[in-house]
Amino acid sequence: MNILVTNDDGIDSPGIYALAMELRTIGTVYVVAPDRQQSAVGHSLTVSSPLRATPFNREGELFGYAVTGTPADCVKLGISTLLDVQPDLLVSGINHGANTSINILYSGTVSAATEGMMMGIPSMAVSLNTFSYQADCRPAAKYATRIAQQMKDFSLPPGTLLNVNVPAIAEEKIRGIRITKQGTGMWHDTYERRRDPMGREYFWLAGTYHPSATEQDTDDAALFDEYVTVTPIRFQLTDHSMIERLRESCKS
Amino acid sequence: MNILVTNDDGIDSPGIYALAMELRTIGTVYVVAPDRQQSAVGHSLTVSSPLRATPFNREGELFGYAVTGTPADCVKLGISTLLDVQPDLLVSGINHGANTSINILYSGTVSAATEGMMMGIPSMAVSLNTFSYQADCRPAAKYATRIAQQMKDFSLPPGTLLNVNVPAIAEEKIRGIRITKQGTGMWHDTYERRRDPMGREYFWLAGTYHPSATEQDTDDAALFDEYVTVTPIRFQLTDHSMIERLRESCKS
Repeated sequence: MNILVTNDDGIDSPGIYALAMELRTIGTVYVVAPDRQQSAVGHSLTVSSPLRATPFNREGELFGYAVTGTPADCVKLGISTLLDVQPDLLVSGINHGANTSINILYSGTVSAATEGMMMGIPSMAVSLNTFSYQADCRPAAKYATRIAQQMKDFSLPPGTLLNVNVPAIAEEKIRGIRITKQGTGMWHDTYERRRDPMGREYFWLAGTYHPSATEQDTDDAALFDEYVTVTPIRFQLTDHSMIERLRESCKS
Repeated sequence: MNILVTNDDGIDSPGIYALAMELRTIGTVYVVAPDRQQSAVGHSLTVSSPLRATPFNREGELFGYAVTGTPADCVKLGISTLLDVQPDLLVSGINHGANTSINILYSGTVSAATEGMMMGIPSMAVSLNTFSYQADCRPAAKYATRIAQQMKDFSLPPGTLLNVNVPAIAEEKIRGIRITKQGTGMWHDTYERRRDPMGREYFWLAGTYHPSATEQDTDDAALFDEYVTVTPIRFQLTDHSMIERLRESCKS
């Protein structure tokens, strides 16, 4: 099995290293990842400037290609140009920080998996529920590998990918896997209004996240309960329930 | 009616000017837009650096705030911090280039409307089916204004926004409005492999878009037929059809 691995924390992050090492136990791993941290880039593509891809070493051996672009750029460039094999599977992560509820929209980690899915590759995103770079990523890497092995059995339809979140606790404390739906948690946004050394005003985003506490079967709820969550997601965005109503409104 | 206007082509683009001028006939318009062109930024947020907002003049009068960020940044910063009124409506555009099918995912124009919707504001994105900055944006501005006037009648549910695309033809040739679904058109990606003056290799994205020619009732098809398309979209991403199947697979 040929596995393409990417992320949005950058090719030098602990998460992608733990993931790539563990996935090597089940296949040949190709890493194509951003050369630096790409937070909240969403599904950005680099169209107005060129990309560069540079071989990147870790632990004294070639680890993969570092790309001067976004996670979605890495997937497009990797599959179309850099790799001489077609991947059987794409795994994006391990992200430092959960990607649940509305965060899926802002997530570079998920967008890389979305790009892979759009290019016809079975794809999954994997995130760890902590922003700490000191966290142990190996339990998440093991779960990701276990789910990766099952991807064929799942026979995901074209257009659907898996979004996996892992609690940041010791492996033996993880209570198992839950199949979940996307929660409805939201951010309450504030901007801190500051002044620079020249006295000029600037703004810095400082939101707080409010998970949907009451909903059942959501990614947020199951992650809080210390389960690994697996959410099948797809980007078919039409609100079919509104189509007839809008047609009526436009007639009148 | 207080109307927040933003875009992703930048506050100096012809599209946002035509839109703001026309919307002034039905309400008070507040412009908060990126200070420069933001192509294919998707739903990016600026979290690792601060934002600045500067008053921006056009035709000798204050036009709005130019922000050093993405379309989604402009909406968050505008609604939470810059404006002293809560907008009744958000209109993002007029984008130069259609946002149909999969392009909705890459679109900064749509992501601004998505951000507005998430903040509880009735929101729409408007795009013109040409990349030419010389195109006449007034027909699109008039249709956008007409649809904006009807937004209350539509009573969109929370979580749903409108994605509008306008053919780049003379107003009298436009055949009317069609309520459509998101098409399944795709990009076939290639990267041009080039060498810089130092002899080092770089890559530049050069894809071609393939609209879904055969589908009925899609944004791509109706736009091709010279209709203004209105697609209700929402970002509820769970693939519910897969949940039971995954639960069965994970048991075995």
